[in-house]
Amino acid sequence: MRFFSDNAAPCCPAVLDALAEANRLDTAYDGDEWSLRLDGAFSDLFGTQVRALWVTTGTAANCIGLATLCPPYGGIICHRDAHIEVDEAGAPGFYTHGGKLILLDGPGAKVTVEAAAEARARIRADVHQVQPKALSITNATEYGMTYSPDEVAALGEFARSHGLGFQLDGARFANAVASTGAHPADLTWRAGVEVMSFGFIKNGGMNAEALIFFKQELADEALVLKKRAGHLSSKGRFSAAQILAMLEGDLWLANARAANAAARTLAEACGSERLVYPVQANELFVRMTAAEAAALRSQGYDFYDWGPGEIRLVTSWDQDMDAVARLAAAIRTL
Amino acid sequence: MRFFSDNAAPCCPAVLDALAEANRLDTAYDGDEWSLRLDGAFSDLFGTQVRALWVTTGTAANCIGLATLCPPYGGIICHRDAHIEVDEAGAPGFYTHGGKLILLDGPGAKVTVEAAAEARARIRADVHQVQPKALSITNATEYGMTYSPDEVAALGEFARSHGLGFQLDGARFANAVASTGAHPADLTWRAGVEVMSFGFIKNGGMNAEALIFFKQELADEALVLKKRAGHLSSKGRFSAAQILAMLEGDLWLANARAANAAARTLAEACGSERLVYPVQANELFVRMTAAEAAALRSQGYDFYDWGPGEIRLVTSWDQDMDAVARLAAAIRTL
Amino acid sequence: MRFFSDNAAPCCPAVLDALAEANRLDTAYDGDEWSLRLDGAFSDLFGTQVRALWVTTGTAANCIGLATLCPPYGGIICHRDAHIEVDEAGAPGFYTHGGKLILLDGPGAKVTVEAAAEARARIRADVHQVQPKALSITNATEYGMTYSPDEVAALGEFARSHGLGFQLDGARFANAVASTGAHPADLTWRAGVEVMSFGFIKNGGMNAEALIFFKQELADEALVLKKRAGHLSSKGRFSAAQILAMLEGDLWLANARAANAAARTLAEACGSERLVYPVQANELFVRMTAAEAAALRSQGYDFYDWGPGEIRLVTSWDQDMDAVARLAAAIRTL
Amino acid sequence: MRFFSDNAAPCCPAVLDALAEANRLDTAYDGDEWSLRLDGAFSDLFGTQVRALWVTTGTAANCIGLATLCPPYGGIICHRDAHIEVDEAGAPGFYTHGGKLILLDGPGAKVTVEAAAEARARIRADVHQVQPKALSITNATEYGMTYSPDEVAALGEFARSHGLGFQLDGARFANAVASTGAHPADLTWRAGVEVMSFGFIKNGGMNAEALIFFKQELADEALVLKKRAGHLSSKGRFSAAQILAMLEGDLWLANARAANAAARTLAEACGSERLVYPVQANELFVRMTAAEAAALRSQGYDFYDWGPGEIRLVTSWDQDMDAVARLAAAIRTL
Repeated sequence: MRFFSDNAAPCCPAVLDALAEANRLDTAYDGDEWSLRLDGAFSDLFGTQVRALWVTTGTAANCIGLATLCPPYGGIICHRDAHIEVDEAGAPGFYTHGGKLILLDGPGAKVTVEAAAEARARIRADVHQVQPKALSITNATEYGMTYSPDEVAALGEFARSHGLGFQLDGARFANAVASTGAHPADLTWRAGVEVMSFGFIKNGGMNAEALIFFKQELADEALVLKKRAGHLSSKGRFSAAQILAMLEGDLWLANARAANAAARTLAEACGSERLVYPVQANELFVRMTAAEAAALRSQGYDFYDWGPGEIRLVTSWDQDMDAVARLAAAIRTL
Repeated sequence: MRFFSDNAAPCCPAVLDALAEANRLDTAYDGDEWSLRLDGAFSDLFGTQVRALWVTTGTAANCIGLATLCPPYGGIICHRDAHIEVDEAGAPGFYTHGGKLILLDGPGAKVTVEAAAEARARIRADVHQVQPKALSITNATEYGMTYSPDEVAALGEFARSHGLGFQLDGARFANAVASTGAHPADLTWRAGVEVMSFGFIKNGGMNAEALIFFKQELADEALVLKKRAGHLSSKGRFSAAQILAMLEGDLWLANARAANAAARTLAEACGSERLVYPVQANELFVRMTAAEAAALRSQGYDFYDWGPGEIRLVTSWDQDMDAVARLAAAIRTL
Repeated sequence: MRFFSDNAAPCCPAVLDALAEANRLDTAYDGDEWSLRLDGAFSDLFGTQVRALWVTTGTAANCIGLATLCPPYGGIICHRDAHIEVDEAGAPGFYTHGGKLILLDGPGAKVTVEAAAEARARIRADVHQVQPKALSITNATEYGMTYSPDEVAALGEFARSHGLGFQLDGARFANAVASTGAHPADLTWRAGVEVMSFGFIKNGGMNAEALIFFKQELADEALVLKKRAGHLSSKGRFSAAQILAMLEGDLWLANARAANAAARTLAEACGSERLVYPVQANELFVRMTAAEAAALRSQGYDFYDWGPGEIRLVTSWDQDMDAVARLAAAIRTL
Repeated sequence: MRFFSDNAAPCCPAVLDALAEANRLDTAYDGDEWSLRLDGAFSDLFGTQVRALWVTTGTAANCIGLATLCPPYGGIICHRDAHIEVDEAGAPGFYTHGGKLILLDGPGAKVTVEAAAEARARIRADVHQVQPKALSITNATEYGMTYSPDEVAALGEFARSHGLGFQLDGARFANAVASTGAHPADLTWRAGVEVMSFGFIKNGGMNAEALIFFKQELADEALVLKKRAGHLSSKGRFSAAQILAMLEGDLWLANARAANAAARTLAEACGSERLVYPVQANELFVRMTAAEAAALRSQGYDFYDWGPGEIRLVTSWDQDMDAVARLAAAIRTL
């Protein structure tokens, strides 16, 4: 039973069905009927007019978005543990043509206004130093924590007052919405977010993520960047269709709730002593000796070590709740 | 009945079946069983050891490959009508970080040794001028013509003797193989090609192309570039699986033969007077008055105008041969 | 006696004097008294408020300027023989991060509205093709021809009506002003030019060129690009001082007149049969057999061959008029 | 009396003399007699065959050098206070096309093997994380400390064993040599340094720095990068001549010794209580209340505040020793 990555999980049946349904003649690139429905579908979801593009990976979604906010000579304030810093192979530097990530510390990979303000204040306003042009946060964070609407809004106000664009890495945005119960609007545009990646792949999709522009005028440049980076699939209807399938009947939210519920079950079994961070989404970082980890593995549970004395457990949309219960019991028994 | 783009065609049933079959738990990114089989499958196809990566578009396949051959300050010799020049939004400049395309003239978008040599000779060997570092050709070309093994080999020898890398845009490589009857090896590595994009999407695939390195040591850098550009899908098994499905039983070749056959039928109907270029793959460029084009459209045939007095017809792997026969008859009747 | 390059000539005594005079303590970078005087000096010269930066080379002046007009995914329309295309090692691609030069043909390296309009018209307005964002001309051109105020204004109107920025490579702008007798304003901002490089080095300077922004709001970004490219000299006063020395008493214009006069003397000796282009500045392209060229060289004249049956002669600000007269006589004697 | 920056100081008379002497006809760019002598002059200085290029700024010297060591997708390990991180406006990202600086902590801006090894160890060897490709140190550091030959050699061994290129920012290399008494070779190539910037401007030069390649095969690429970045001055003889003048009779070393001596005098007056770092070159970072700083300023001394309760004093090659003595006395009197 695997608890190592939500990327390893299969796709929802609804996604495969949508691909089959979309497998008919239509216009190439993004002129097809499915692609044309994305703006409307996401505008409905967010309760405001947005522009929505499909892309094939979260890295592309994040970095095309950031490139519309940050010029080659600019900086992006983000957390030291942000995916864009740690796990995208320098893609922000590639897409922005040399933009610099300005790194913040703080527990659970969460950006705070205090940390951002301190970093901002250290930078002289002259041509010798890279001036920040954007702020990027991840919700849920890389350590499975969430931002509340108020927290996002405070960061949005910080960004606005310092002339920074505001981007959200939403690879696990669904988990954040499911966890906080907040309206998607309150975690995004009402709080000042201008552009976001909206993740579907970890949450049951196959190979399409959404790139959402609340600041709609940025989308035209993004369309060019998307093509120029080789992300304009010629049969784009298959990307759009799977996203629409995930939106249909709020499947994205149901899937995220399932993954979160599995994580909560495990979190309760771990207890606060073992948990490195509060479990607010579908990831757990658990203090565990090597012997304990080995004991779990010998019972068939797969997961990653996360530094010495620590493991990571990730739950997925399709997690078998019996297996989860058995793992919870096994953890309690340690 | 559409004859405007092979990108508009649906996918092969075998591709959809492969996606369903791959929809089970496996390692993320490219560590899954399907991805791991690609090197072997393409090595068998080409009769030599190669390294093979999946990517999601032809633009990515072309430009990641070119970026392994051409430094930021280098030039790539190609035809003025090459896809990388005309239809990739400057992606070669993006992926190479400013590399320059050095453009050749010549009928049918075919590169000749003479044209390449002349362009090379015009460039002074000093730091003031951009020095060419690679040669790129497209087979079949953007105007539906093919290179013979001898033609490719002559270009390969030119590249080798001038210290140029040699890349092949194989968006319609299947059509070229089907048309020439040549062994894939004779159109590629035996003729000096070092890296190629191998197209599947236009030929019945969904959203995966292959990037093949005959010069295997380039593949390590390509893996980094692929990740950095956001082309390392987290559920990469779906990309690999659809490519493997296309290779299975030479489906790629059967599909290309079908598309080529449809094109030949139309070419015979057009006659040499109407044809701007010899029809050697699945595209036809046909001289036709606006009135004639309108007459065909009124009968339900869809296609693009291609400049004044000219139209383009593209046939697909799934073309209904009755519809093709009817269009052929309609053209004869004009 | 050398006629091979105006870059080979020495500096004006006034420039050396200015360096000595500036050799005292002052603020680093561009906060010194000389640098602070540049805006005013060029505003006086052009009869309008401008912002003026020193840089150390013409390539930097051209490409920083262009980078303020053209995004990484944009194109710059220019002549096929433009210095930015032929002799700057791809610097436009470096500074714009991959921008593409869209090349025009035409005699004497002159851009015409017709050629530019034709090139513009060939580009589809979609994301697949690189969209032009700027127009660049060189006055005097790389073949020693000049644009009149009306010609520049027509190009400016073309640029404006197509949403293109308009940049002028003025490496030999002084020669163009001297030749046409036009007011500098009429060759630049009154004709729609937004940014220009203003060359001094070929005209008696040492190692400073000016980068002038008529569209002043672009200068802030240029200051950042200049620093980022390593062109913000820490003792910038020496750059500014030499430019001011060249402006003092219109030395720049006197120097250019001297060079032009020498060229005219040689042009008269050549006669229209020999001249490939009209001689309007300080360069001559002269039809000459290899034997004739050898005969001149045997008499001590240095110059470059310029393709078969053609030589290039360049005159400088300090050309000895006796030597010029002797060369003129020698040409007549051929 | 200014103690705020060695960039504010005038040039040596020998530099101005050299410019005047070089003010005669010669080949353009770097084909002149002065430029051609650089390789030999620096090879003599370092006691090994090197290749030496002039450039116009330290930023260019650093970043062209780094770009020969680090690909666009690579990382450069350096100190958090390194000039390339703090004061070059992101130029490393520009020249490497997106390379990432991997930042180390440590007192006095000194890189230690321990800190470098720890940073290296944190990076997984996969395509998701930016892999370090180079190590960069500054000697003397941005806080006026020096590395001994043994310290550089230990870092060189670290770099070699981890496959990293090794670059030295030598903006104040002269001060480091003067301070340590080490042979230049022992601080560079014998310790594994492959490329360095050798600063002259802060030390009495006007506008030329040297870029030295101990790993000579990198210089060819550097020549292209230099041109492409607009750093190939057309009258390069003036750059080369001033560097040669500084090398003549070890003027560079004499100047650095003078600046260091002035700093030592001030350091003794400050006493170890006030000094934030040991004073090993020509910079002092001094604990001082605002009132004390104001008192000094009221006596005519110019310097920068350096955070709360701290000032920076910089001495120059031409510092008047009487003024230095008076400042020392004034500090003692505080």
